Amino acid sequence: MIVKLRSMKTTVCREAHFNSAHRLHNSEWSDDRNQAVFGKCNNPTYHGHNYDLIVKVTGDVDPETGYVMDMKILKDLIEEHVIEAFDHKNLNLDTEEFKSLNPTAENIARVIYEKLRPGIGEDLGLRIVLYETRRNFVEYGE
Amino acid sequence: MIVKLRSMKTTVCREAHFNSAHRLHNSEWSDDRNQAVFGKCNNPTYHGHNYDLIVKVTGDVDPETGYVMDMKILKDLIEEHVIEAFDHKNLNLDTEEFKSLNPTAENIARVIYEKLRPGIGEDLGLRIVLYETRRNFVEYGE
Amino acid sequence: MIVKLRSMKTTVCREAHFNSAHRLHNSEWSDDRNQAVFGKCNNPTYHGHNYDLIVKVTGDVDPETGYVMDMKILKDLIEEHVIEAFDHKNLNLDTEEFKSLNPTAENIARVIYEKLRPGIGEDLGLRIVLYETRRNFVEYGE
Amino acid sequence: MIVKLRSMKTTVCREAHFNSAHRLHNSEWSDDRNQAVFGKCNNPTYHGHNYDLIVKVTGDVDPETGYVMDMKILKDLIEEHVIEAFDHKNLNLDTEEFKSLNPTAENIARVIYEKLRPGIGEDLGLRIVLYETRRNFVEYGE
Amino acid sequence: MIVKLRSMKTTVCREAHFNSAHRLHNSEWSDDRNQAVFGKCNNPTYHGHNYDLIVKVTGDVDPETGYVMDMKILKDLIEEHVIEAFDHKNLNLDTEEFKSLNPTAENIARVIYEKLRPGIGEDLGLRIVLYETRRNFVEYGE
Amino acid sequence: MIVKLRSMKTTVCREAHFNSAHRLHNSEWSDDRNQAVFGKCNNPTYHGHNYDLIVKVTGDVDPETGYVMDMKILKDLIEEHVIEAFDHKNLNLDTEEFKSLNPTAENIARVIYEKLRPGIGEDLGLRIVLYETRRNFVEYGE
Repeated sequence: MIVKLRSMKTTVCREAHFNSAHRLHNSEWSDDRNQAVFGKCNNPTYHGHNYDLIVKVTGDVDPETGYVMDMKILKDLIEEHVIEAFDHKNLNLDTEEFKSLNPTAENIARVIYEKLRPGIGEDLGLRIVLYETRRNFVEYGE
Repeated sequence: MIVKLRSMKTTVCREAHFNSAHRLHNSEWSDDRNQAVFGKCNNPTYHGHNYDLIVKVTGDVDPETGYVMDMKILKDLIEEHVIEAFDHKNLNLDTEEFKSLNPTAENIARVIYEKLRPGIGEDLGLRIVLYETRRNFVEYGE
Repeated sequence: MIVKLRSMKTTVCREAHFNSAHRLHNSEWSDDRNQAVFGKCNNPTYHGHNYDLIVKVTGDVDPETGYVMDMKILKDLIEEHVIEAFDHKNLNLDTEEFKSLNPTAENIARVIYEKLRPGIGEDLGLRIVLYETRRNFVEYGE
Repeated sequence: MIVKLRSMKTTVCREAHFNSAHRLHNSEWSDDRNQAVFGKCNNPTYHGHNYDLIVKVTGDVDPETGYVMDMKILKDLIEEHVIEAFDHKNLNLDTEEFKSLNPTAENIARVIYEKLRPGIGEDLGLRIVLYETRRNFVEYGE
Repeated sequence: MIVKLRSMKTTVCREAHFNSAHRLHNSEWSDDRNQAVFGKCNNPTYHGHNYDLIVKVTGDVDPETGYVMDMKILKDLIEEHVIEAFDHKNLNLDTEEFKSLNPTAENIARVIYEKLRPGIGEDLGLRIVLYETRRNFVEYGE
Repeated sequence: MIVKLRSMKTTVCREAHFNSAHRLHNSEWSDDRNQAVFGKCNNPTYHGHNYDLIVKVTGDVDPETGYVMDMKILKDLIEEHVIEAFDHKNLNLDTEEFKSLNPTAENIARVIYEKLRPGIGEDLGLRIVLYETRRNFVEYGE
C-alpha cells in the first residue's frame, strides 16, 4: 500500500518571472580556476536569464474560503520580496544577497525560500522551483 | 544518504482538459464579504477557465505489459468521471458537487480525486495536478 | 526571387490573458437550431476559457529609441481596452459588444482589433491572434 | 506541522530529448493478445515519438561552487548514456536493452535510471521524468 | 501605410497530433550518398516523432454563425485524412504517399495540404504548419 | 478567392537560444531622458534574458532531397553567426554590433537578419522571430 504521507494536504502553486543579469564567480578563487569551473557562465561582463519561478505552498484547505492561502497574498509576497529585489537587476552587483554568494540557480532558489519563509504560515510547507532556462531548473524546500 | 521511499514505484501521468464557467462564492456570507475575499472571482455572472488536469497514478510495473496501468483505461476513467461532468459546464449551476461547495482550484482537485479514487486500484497511489491558469495550479493526493 | 513586401517593416508582439465565461448563441434562431449548430458551446448556463491574446504591431523602427512602439504603451492599451473589459466577465451578459454579437473566437478577435485600432498609429499595421484553447485559435487584421 | 524530510536538500534538473521508433509487444504472447492489449501501439512496422527527458539529481549544495552537481557533467552523462544510445534509433531493433524488454515509457524510464545511476554519486538521489507525448509521461526513481 | 491585403479576412487554426516512424531516404541514391546527406535520419530501422500539426483556414466570417468554418468539421477532416492515415504508422512502409516520396517535414506538410484541400471550400485559404520537433518546423500553403 | 502569393513556397523554421545581458540606452541622451524612456530596462548594471530565436527560410523544395535547405547547415549558420556572437555575452559591452546601437529586440532581430542573410541563398526568403520574453517578441524580414 502507498504510504499517504501527504494525503490530507493540498499544495497551491503560483508562477512569477524576473529577468536578471548575473555571472558565476567565486571571489576566493583565481581567475583561471573560476574560468575552468564556470566556463562561459563566468564572463566578467555578465550574461542574463528570464527566470521562471514557481512557489508551492502546502497545507490544509480552509473550509470557509476553499483556499490553502489566498493567491493574491502569495502573489503580493512574491512581488515584494522577489520581483522588486531581482527583476531587471544585476544579481551580483545590485543585491545584498549575492554580493558574496555565487548566484547559481541552487543558491537563488534557497535565497528566495529564505526571503519568502517568514511571510508563509508556520503550519504551511514551502517549496521553490526555479527555471534558469527551459532546460535547467532547480527545486528547494519542504 | 537519500531515503528511497518511492524508489521501487513508478508514476504514470495523463493530461486532460476541460473548459468551465464558475464563480467563487460562500453562500453563508454577505455579498460584501464575498466581494472582499474573492474580488473579481466573485462576479455574479461568472467567468471561466481552460482547466488543464494531470492525473498521476503510482505503483509497480506489471512485468508482462510493462504498464503500471493501461493509459487507455485511465483516459476513459478521466473522460467518464471528469470531462463529461465538468467540460462546457457551469460548475456552480450544472454540477451536484459544487452546488454548495465553493469551486476553488483546491476544492475541484479534491473532488476530482474523490471521483477517480474508486476506479483506481487500492494498491495504486493517486495524485491530482490541476492548472486553473498557466500561473495558478494546485496538487492533491498521495 | 522572393517579393519583399514586408522587408523593411518590423513587427512587435505582446501577449496578454483574460478569463471569461461565454456561450455561443444566435438569438434569432430556435433553441433546437442553436443546439444543432453550436452543440455543447451553447450550454445556457455558460462555460469559459482562459483566452491568450497576442497583439502584433507592424511598422518602422524609430532610430532614436530602437522601438516600433513602446511596449509599455501597448501593454497599457491592451489593459485598458481588453483586459478591463473582458477579464473575469461573462462576455454575453457583462459586455456591450456581445449583447447581440455571438462571442465566437472570430468575433472576439475582430472586436479586440476594433477596440485597439484607434490607439495604434495610422502608419502601423495591427494584427490580433487569439487562443480560445491551446488547440483552437484565430487571427485577424492587416 | 509539515515534516521536512527533504528540507535541506536541493534538486537540480536537466532536460534532454531523443527521437525514436518503437512498438509495444510481448514476444511471449500471441499476435491477437498483443493487438488486444497494445492496440495501435503494437503496429508491426513501428511508430515513433519525440521523447522529452528530465533528469533530477538531489543532494547538498557545495558551498564552494554553489552546485549540487555541475550541469555540464550531467549533460554529458545524459548525452553519452541516453542520447547516443536511443536518439534516431529503433528501440526494439537497435538497442540491447529493449531486445526482449517491452519499450513502454515505464520501462524506458527505469532503463534510463539504471544507465545513469552509476555515474551519479551515491550520496545523490536520482529521479527520471520521461514524456512520451505531451499528454503521457512517467516518473521513476528516488 | 500598411497595405491591407488580408484585412477583411479571418484565419481559424486547429491543432492536432500524430506519432509516426520514418526515415529519410532517396531510393535512387547509393547508401553512401543517403548517409552523407541524411545522416542519422537515414537509420535503416527508422526513428520517429510526435508531429504537431496546425491547420489554418482563411476566409470571411459567416454573420449568422460567427464562424469562418465550423471547427468540428475541420477537426473531423483532419482526423479522417491525416490522423487515421499517419498516426501510429510507419510513414515509409504503411502509407501510399511516402512509398516513393521522401518523408521530410516539407513533403509531409505538402501531402497534408493536398489531402485536406478538396475538403476546404474554394473561397477559403489553407495553410499547414507542421512541427517535427519543438526546434524544427515547416509551413506550406496560401 | 485567396490570392496565392506564397502558395508554391515552403518555409522551414529552426529554433535556437542564447542568454545575454543588456541594457537599453541611447548614449546621445541625458541620463534622465534614458530613464524616462527606458525605465527599468535602462538599469546601468544591466539585466538579461533567455532569447528564443526562430529563423525561417522560404523557398522551393528540392525534389531530390525533399529539403528547402539542409537544417544542419542552417543550424550551423545560426551557431556560428548568432550563438557564438551573443550567447553568455553582454550585448552592450562584448559585441561590435551593439557598441553604439541600442539592443532592443527590434534591433537585435535586424542585426541577426543581416548576419545570416549572406549565408542564405538569394533565391530564399529569410525571416527572424525573436522572443525577448514569453510575452514580448518581434519579427523581421521578408
